[in-house]
Amino acid sequence: MEITDFKSIARNYETIFFDAFGVLKNHQGLLPGIENTFAYLKENDIDYYILTNDASRGPKELAQGYQDAGLMDITKSKVISSGMLAREYLKMKVKSGTVAYLGTKESAHYIETVGLKTISIADLDMDEADDVSVLVFLDDEGFDWNHHINKTVNLLRRHNIPTIVSNTDRYYPVNRKEVAVAVGGIADMVENIVRKTFIRFGKPDAQMFIYAHQHTISRGATTDKNKILMVGDTLSTDILGGNKFGLDTVLVLTGNTLAERAESRIRSTGIIPTFVCESAIID
Amino acid sequence: MEITDFKSIARNYETIFFDAFGVLKNHQGLLPGIENTFAYLKENDIDYYILTNDASRGPKELAQGYQDAGLMDITKSKVISSGMLAREYLKMKVKSGTVAYLGTKESAHYIETVGLKTISIADLDMDEADDVSVLVFLDDEGFDWNHHINKTVNLLRRHNIPTIVSNTDRYYPVNRKEVAVAVGGIADMVENIVRKTFIRFGKPDAQMFIYAHQHTISRGATTDKNKILMVGDTLSTDILGGNKFGLDTVLVLTGNTLAERAESRIRSTGIIPTFVCESAIID
Amino acid sequence: MEITDFKSIARNYETIFFDAFGVLKNHQGLLPGIENTFAYLKENDIDYYILTNDASRGPKELAQGYQDAGLMDITKSKVISSGMLAREYLKMKVKSGTVAYLGTKESAHYIETVGLKTISIADLDMDEADDVSVLVFLDDEGFDWNHHINKTVNLLRRHNIPTIVSNTDRYYPVNRKEVAVAVGGIADMVENIVRKTFIRFGKPDAQMFIYAHQHTISRGATTDKNKILMVGDTLSTDILGGNKFGLDTVLVLTGNTLAERAESRIRSTGIIPTFVCESAIID
Amino acid sequence: MEITDFKSIARNYETIFFDAFGVLKNHQGLLPGIENTFAYLKENDIDYYILTNDASRGPKELAQGYQDAGLMDITKSKVISSGMLAREYLKMKVKSGTVAYLGTKESAHYIETVGLKTISIADLDMDEADDVSVLVFLDDEGFDWNHHINKTVNLLRRHNIPTIVSNTDRYYPVNRKEVAVAVGGIADMVENIVRKTFIRFGKPDAQMFIYAHQHTISRGATTDKNKILMVGDTLSTDILGGNKFGLDTVLVLTGNTLAERAESRIRSTGIIPTFVCESAIID
Repeated sequence: MEITDFKSIARNYETIFFDAFGVLKNHQGLLPGIENTFAYLKENDIDYYILTNDASRGPKELAQGYQDAGLMDITKSKVISSGMLAREYLKMKVKSGTVAYLGTKESAHYIETVGLKTISIADLDMDEADDVSVLVFLDDEGFDWNHHINKTVNLLRRHNIPTIVSNTDRYYPVNRKEVAVAVGGIADMVENIVRKTFIRFGKPDAQMFIYAHQHTISRGATTDKNKILMVGDTLSTDILGGNKFGLDTVLVLTGNTLAERAESRIRSTGIIPTFVCESAIID
Repeated sequence: MEITDFKSIARNYETIFFDAFGVLKNHQGLLPGIENTFAYLKENDIDYYILTNDASRGPKELAQGYQDAGLMDITKSKVISSGMLAREYLKMKVKSGTVAYLGTKESAHYIETVGLKTISIADLDMDEADDVSVLVFLDDEGFDWNHHINKTVNLLRRHNIPTIVSNTDRYYPVNRKEVAVAVGGIADMVENIVRKTFIRFGKPDAQMFIYAHQHTISRGATTDKNKILMVGDTLSTDILGGNKFGLDTVLVLTGNTLAERAESRIRSTGIIPTFVCESAIID
Repeated sequence: MEITDFKSIARNYETIFFDAFGVLKNHQGLLPGIENTFAYLKENDIDYYILTNDASRGPKELAQGYQDAGLMDITKSKVISSGMLAREYLKMKVKSGTVAYLGTKESAHYIETVGLKTISIADLDMDEADDVSVLVFLDDEGFDWNHHINKTVNLLRRHNIPTIVSNTDRYYPVNRKEVAVAVGGIADMVENIVRKTFIRFGKPDAQMFIYAHQHTISRGATTDKNKILMVGDTLSTDILGGNKFGLDTVLVLTGNTLAERAESRIRSTGIIPTFVCESAIID
Repeated sequence: MEITDFKSIARNYETIFFDAFGVLKNHQGLLPGIENTFAYLKENDIDYYILTNDASRGPKELAQGYQDAGLMDITKSKVISSGMLAREYLKMKVKSGTVAYLGTKESAHYIETVGLKTISIADLDMDEADDVSVLVFLDDEGFDWNHHINKTVNLLRRHNIPTIVSNTDRYYPVNRKEVAVAVGGIADMVENIVRKTFIRFGKPDAQMFIYAHQHTISRGATTDKNKILMVGDTLSTDILGGNKFGLDTVLVLTGNTLAERAESRIRSTGIIPTFVCESAIID
């Protein structure tokens, strides 16, 4: 497995899509030196977007996190989250009624900004659920799993309502040694129990990349996919999704895919990045 | 779909295996009239066993439930539960160390009766988990899902320990209108996240039927499978398992399989009971 | 379940996406009267596209089929097939080497039109397979399943090459009573055996709808998804995909979803069309 | 990972269950030196059985293969195959009608020895299929995949008949470099297409081990599972099945599990053998 220097790759593209966790940051905050990468991109007029499977907050709040850490150029227009796709779906398809959700009040607030009425599963009166027109899995926090997962199962058994999963990840890292079950993992369990088909948003799904691509075009950048690079730490989401959308892809070894296992993981999955780099840090 | 009278079938067998929930009882208690069935079996010298996917209590406690409701002949030797198989596995394979579990203290107590040391995931110190030699999913109650499912995921990521699921059901009815997620459903989610292979006990697995069959033989009854009838309300567990073990099977319409959907469910699953009866009640 | 007249729906949209088989035609040819629908669309200046999971031929050949049956307005620019997406992927990602394929010579010919070199698995010398840079499942015909599926499995075990499935369907109807296994079904089997992750093109994947949408835009039509209607006979591909992309959807009862089962299928899958119509025929 | 000498383990057991392929033999025939193992077992009065997922021939023919290679003590009573379980099922459950099969004439011949009438799918007249009472997947050879897999799919769509898979393996080795799709792999594909539930026989299913255990008991050997050892080369069948049945297990490195990958495979699957040995050969 050949390891390539990230800079020697990056300079050949007009736009770069970055995954967030494991690429730009980890549980301790931004990767030391990643600010140099953004300085290099600016200097060389290379555009970029951050594509993240996250529906816990809106892009404004996600961008604020980068700014608080010193990356002032990362504004909300640079962040594309699976939550944005879920919100767009709801805006498009929900003409009336209430959006029931599993998640925090903060995650629901972002949905409400397009004028939708929301109610937490925790607060829902099961005998007055006729007004619920859609269910959304937003976040793994903000509710009591013992009671509210069961309540969700019973809601879906009694009412035939479309169900949206706004983050397809099954788990996420919380520190160097531990992970936590993500809302995508909870949604999988509920789907297996009620045996219905949920609608999922997030990488590796093409929709995430198309949304980013359209963003790029709308801001005057290239429409040529050969000029866009996808950088990620996870084969099954970032690399598979980027490949399928027709982009060149870089696997970095600063996150989910450990250096010593990268080669065997590529072989065993058959998901082949165009390049492998130690990290996305440009010195 | 031909509906047959249960009595006209039952009298042709020497032993009958019954599923419990949906066949003998429901959320309100014993099915009215089911006591007549047991009187008929006694009178006609037909032996019987109750095969249940349940690891929340031992067979003694399960039997006590029937006795409290007036069926005094149902003693612990008549009850065969998936928990018994899990306990037998642990007795056979665990030579030392501690059995970590998800479930109630009561469910763990039954495991302890063969001399094993247990610890609830809730009480486990993650930094002293080296002594854990096996993990068991016993019951959906007795722990905080938000915290202890995540703790379980991290235990399995850090330690390579065999994992047992002592009830394969994904959900169970709690009243006429509601179900609850069973420990089998939670185990499926954890297995999908940690991507390891768990060992499962319960119908439709052959082991459950073999255990019952050996019980039958050890008590002097027939070894001839043609003389044993399996009665259940669920195609995918009771009927599939009974068929595979070579038994004649009866689907009753007092539980999971509704009368109006039975025919289409049989056709769509390809799981075909030998007979279909309204209920297991003999007037 | 309310049945709505198709005309009363169609007139509210600027563009209509049609599935082909089960909507416009069946094993006997075009549905009698479907020509009136296209006359109505022309008269009322409603644009349309045909979205089909088919990689057996190029859009030109697919369009020719409609013209031969008398629908002269259906030119190749009106047809969007999963094969087009697969071809675009190959054009974008394959810089050198040979494309190995399972399918007919005709299906490969369409791939070759972008300048790629192809070789049928049937003709491949396994000892000189180093030049193969990608494998494509194109069609269920054109090769000997006994020999060439095994040859494909061994190719993928020995060489780590990306694999493309250009039609996600598992089976397709061949006449009123019979179906045949589609190349998507064969690809699923091979994927389960080699345990790698293939890249799939076709409904319900968003990419199919985006491609159609971009086509629409490039021809000067609306960019507003509220003005596009998706019409299909299959919940799990046409309706799920259309819903997810944010379109209004019509389920027609002239194909895979039988009238007497439509309501229970919608309930059991949780895939809910905006409207249900007898057919897409406008008298 | 500790490697233990096989002899030092074997001598502590009264009965040993061996997997065949990858343990006793490979594509070139018996493993050189394996005859010493059988001499040692005989000398030390340790009983043994061969448990194999194979339904291509009866145990007599399978035993003959060992005898032809010089192991004269391996008679048909020493061989327990998944085909025996399938045959027992058919004998028990099929009271009338014809058994349709996919496989060779030889594989069907073994089924016929219990008095059943069989017909190859190749020879079946689809318009006179009402007499078919069960379908069995016996072998991957003996039929034309292109035509007869499609014929099988249509048979199962039109008739609701129970379906048996007599070998759960998805593929098998044919020489040092190549594998072939096994009948279990073909059955998985058909099951996914017709969406029915098939009945499977073979390791890791408990039934295989129980059958072997009962054989052991009926021949006067121990009933004590602590005195039985399972030896295999495949974690997901031999070791998982042996563990679940409560036996001590040995993973050998002469077959599917390569020495250099054994430790990581054990960790990633969570299927943990009691011992790991280079081979089952006793010098």
